[in-house]
Amino acid sequence: MARNTQVAADHNAPPVTDILARHVADHPSRGWSDAVEVEAHRTFMNWLGCAVGAARHDAADAALAAVAMLQPAPQATVLGRAERVDMASAALVNGITSHTFDFDDTHLKTIIHPAGPVASALLALAEVTGASGRRLIDALVLGIDVSCRVGNAMYPDHYDRGWHITGSTGTVGAAAGCARLLGLGASQTAMALGIAASQPVGMREQFGTMTKPFHPGGAARAGLMAALMARHGYTASLRALEAPRGMMQTISSKCDWREISHELGQRFEISFNSYKPFACGIVIHPAIDACAQLRARGVTPDQVERIELKVHSLVLELTGKKEPADGLQAKFSVYHGCAAGLTFGQAGEPEFADDVVTRPDMVTLRRKVVATVDEAIDEASADVTAVLTDGRRVHVFIEHAIGSLQNPMTDAQLDAKFHSLTDPVLGAQASGRLIAACRGVDGMADLRALVALSVPA
Amino acid sequence: MARNTQVAADHNAPPVTDILARHVADHPSRGWSDAVEVEAHRTFMNWLGCAVGAARHDAADAALAAVAMLQPAPQATVLGRAERVDMASAALVNGITSHTFDFDDTHLKTIIHPAGPVASALLALAEVTGASGRRLIDALVLGIDVSCRVGNAMYPDHYDRGWHITGSTGTVGAAAGCARLLGLGASQTAMALGIAASQPVGMREQFGTMTKPFHPGGAARAGLMAALMARHGYTASLRALEAPRGMMQTISSKCDWREISHELGQRFEISFNSYKPFACGIVIHPAIDACAQLRARGVTPDQVERIELKVHSLVLELTGKKEPADGLQAKFSVYHGCAAGLTFGQAGEPEFADDVVTRPDMVTLRRKVVATVDEAIDEASADVTAVLTDGRRVHVFIEHAIGSLQNPMTDAQLDAKFHSLTDPVLGAQASGRLIAACRGVDGMADLRALVALSVPA
Repeated sequence: MARNTQVAADHNAPPVTDILARHVADHPSRGWSDAVEVEAHRTFMNWLGCAVGAARHDAADAALAAVAMLQPAPQATVLGRAERVDMASAALVNGITSHTFDFDDTHLKTIIHPAGPVASALLALAEVTGASGRRLIDALVLGIDVSCRVGNAMYPDHYDRGWHITGSTGTVGAAAGCARLLGLGASQTAMALGIAASQPVGMREQFGTMTKPFHPGGAARAGLMAALMARHGYTASLRALEAPRGMMQTISSKCDWREISHELGQRFEISFNSYKPFACGIVIHPAIDACAQLRARGVTPDQVERIELKVHSLVLELTGKKEPADGLQAKFSVYHGCAAGLTFGQAGEPEFADDVVTRPDMVTLRRKVVATVDEAIDEASADVTAVLTDGRRVHVFIEHAIGSLQNPMTDAQLDAKFHSLTDPVLGAQASGRLIAACRGVDGMADLRALVALSVPA
Repeated sequence: MARNTQVAADHNAPPVTDILARHVADHPSRGWSDAVEVEAHRTFMNWLGCAVGAARHDAADAALAAVAMLQPAPQATVLGRAERVDMASAALVNGITSHTFDFDDTHLKTIIHPAGPVASALLALAEVTGASGRRLIDALVLGIDVSCRVGNAMYPDHYDRGWHITGSTGTVGAAAGCARLLGLGASQTAMALGIAASQPVGMREQFGTMTKPFHPGGAARAGLMAALMARHGYTASLRALEAPRGMMQTISSKCDWREISHELGQRFEISFNSYKPFACGIVIHPAIDACAQLRARGVTPDQVERIELKVHSLVLELTGKKEPADGLQAKFSVYHGCAAGLTFGQAGEPEFADDVVTRPDMVTLRRKVVATVDEAIDEASADVTAVLTDGRRVHVFIEHAIGSLQNPMTDAQLDAKFHSLTDPVLGAQASGRLIAACRGVDGMADLRALVALSVPA
């Protein structure tokens, strides 16, 4: 790995900060297709489910204990919990929980998880300011458009260098969204982007620790505060993103400015958002999907003598752990993924629990998986054959796993994922009401009813 | 300017995060020479004076208006103002004001302004936790040691790339100081450094805007929160600083690990801190000092026919503005610097006020300055001759200006600087009491009396 690439500074960058600020401030409310609008709602709901689902995680407890030392005003909701805190701290904690299970949304072109920073900042701010659901969705679309376009311009060099691109672009996206929600004009929006541009968050070395989910949380908090400061007259450079010593050139060797303005206002990056059906790295998803389809065809674990799995070499490189000892290791085991798919038909957070991973029937089933590399198979695909004890062979080929852009999760599947995350926290009935609220959020005069449904009774 | 340099990732870095964490957690209280102890007190007092002095600046107003939207608990003092806010917000605002006038301390080897991030976080935390002055000074010495050592390792490449090194190293220094003040053990201190390592703050493009002083403020807030999170069990990578995708390799091409551990615990970077006598860039200081010495020898502006100034070429390159129109322009005018030195014997913030810069006598005097480049003169020096109307010539040569390491400000001069900053805010009498409190801070059981003196009656 080479840490850097020799690139001359670009003194002639277009006025990216100003271009994005005008886009955010001036684009008409709901000025996009129905498909964009639908995806915005799906993004919001998926983010909310992830945050509620991880609300009781140790990371949330530790962050909230730190926040409690500030004696925060009870302004805003901590999703899935009884505590109320100031809006900046709510943005922080909800950003953390939304990414804790690594189960949130993915903008596949940049592997940004865009909702964490943007939606976490927006919901907290909207709750305090009494903003409508319509304003929230507008701000979500535009905030995510900013963070993903900045990401498009810098990816992959910026990521390769060591930045966790979700947090580094997320501060700017959150500031953009909050500026829109506050109704700032283009020049104050540019100041918000500028203040945010001095605060990229997140290094990849933190993967595997609580600081990974801190990144979207920290970005949400920083972006929200940047917008509040800009609203009250705080100033920044109008070329904070693009100048030679501005954010993008400082943190990335690649800065493709065309990515900022290409089809701006016509194409919205939220359209390319995807949602994970399984609570693990995307490279195992085709194999899990294939085994879940075996189960749907009536194959049961006790019938199985052997599962022949053919995959791309990357799958075994990254997730080749044969005998995972706990839930975290199981997330790097395509063998466990297959066993979970065949046994449960799903692989959410519960199917990666330590006590599931160590169950004797799971250990036995994992050992029946024979994985081989097949160079003809794409990394987005998997070829699975169940060889049964009676000699029958049942074959499934997955070209694009569920959750990919080519094969997106249906609304019903998103509902099921949401329930699997939130039912243990809120109960099934409240979860159902919360789904309905998310689906109708654009019609809400304010967000009070929605956030009230997001806390345990 | 080349944006980056090709450097291979270093997979064999020493355990820098762990080394610094042990240093911070385990070093004995006041385990250093008297000279270090004295410098720590001078650093603290100079920082406090700068923060009080800028308390009424527009940047402080804007930041506090944003903070007010969080309905903060009145936990901690905003220096020089009546408002009280939560400790994280106090760290933010005091960090901003301490750097607003560009008049704070400088670690010359790295041009880090180290007190802003570290002291701003510490005083707010100490006020809330009831920590003693002794603990505050210990934490200040060790926190600054961490930020400046990290800076030493990365400077100059890191700075050249575009980072404002005060904020990028400041988050880690503030986290280190706060971890020490909280009494965290080495392993939790390492977590605090790790959480902070994901949050470097500040791009040089922001120079000339309010976001420049935001950098130490944002770093103070982020470092304080990192320490609070670590205290409550939040985790980060134990190699967050040094890993190939950790902070230092991600944001700097140069990572000289020896700078971290060389003479660790014997040499303290706070020893090399310096204090600006004049509220402008350091390159003009020798000329101002020379003219102030002319005044001390009895030369008055009305006696002067011409001032012959010989300087290094850099002085005229950076500060060659002959006819500054306002205070900000005057900071880039060696001509105004000379006029202020001769007229007032000083060049603090008041001598750069717009209405002073445009005064007819100042305009006249500036026009009498004839500046020439002399290649024999070092950039730290200045050669000045006053040619008087009666034909006499009075000559002053400054080898090292007041405020340099070779010619540090005396305590009396620091007192005068402090008064010039704080008298307009607190009054002369209260300022005098505050100076006495700063000088005796190590003996205070808690900081309540000191912070009470820092707000207007």
